[in-house]
Amino acid sequence: MKSVGRHLVLELWGCKNLNSPDAIEAALREMVAACNVTMLDLRVYPFEPMGVTGIAVLAESHINIHTWPEFGYAAVDIFTCGSRKDPSDAIPALREIFAPERIESMEMTRGIMVDQPVGAGAAE
Amino acid sequence: MKSVGRHLVLELWGCKNLNSPDAIEAALREMVAACNVTMLDLRVYPFEPMGVTGIAVLAESHINIHTWPEFGYAAVDIFTCGSRKDPSDAIPALREIFAPERIESMEMTRGIMVDQPVGAGAAE
Repeated sequence: MKSVGRHLVLELWGCKNLNSPDAIEAALREMVAACNVTMLDLRVYPFEPMGVTGIAVLAESHINIHTWPEFGYAAVDIFTCGSRKDPSDAIPALREIFAPERIESMEMTRGIMVDQPVGAGAAE
Repeated sequence: MKSVGRHLVLELWGCKNLNSPDAIEAALREMVAACNVTMLDLRVYPFEPMGVTGIAVLAESHINIHTWPEFGYAAVDIFTCGSRKDPSDAIPALREIFAPERIESMEMTRGIMVDQPVGAGAAE
């Protein structure tokens, strides 16, 4: 079925470097390069007393990282549109920079265009 | 179980106003107000020949909108951390501005701390 793209949801636990804006920026840049996507904007927001949000706006959608250093946890979303892009190409960069002890993952296919055959009725 | 927040994933179909940066900005502002979250930054990126990306960076994570006017489709993510925030409060603003014929939804609980005692509640 036709769709607009792939959205990889990652939960990283037991991480290092979660309170470093430089590390979050480096992760975003490496993830963008690894996925071969086009970055339109990159923003990093440190929080007090801790935690960082980093956002890479892509021509192909977005990469978002939110960190909770107090839990060793980072929430990462990688949404890449276009059939030739693979968001999982970004995972090695995450492993390198945050050294997670555990990664949980789920991938959603976004914008699935379900065909509606004539006479199929309510098929949702 | 203790967790960091709620991430609502919405697929909007049969929408109006998808190619209007002003509409996307208005939607983000109304969603932020409806969810009673704190906006740190708002960015809207129009694409050629069509499509718009809008991002609201929140103290409580993010709201992202990506539109494909050619399909009448918008991908919306609303990630709010904090136990008192409900990302579904943003849905009326989406209905008002984009008038979707159909909304598909899924909600993910992000950052579930499985090692915490049951009933520990969400993190603030």
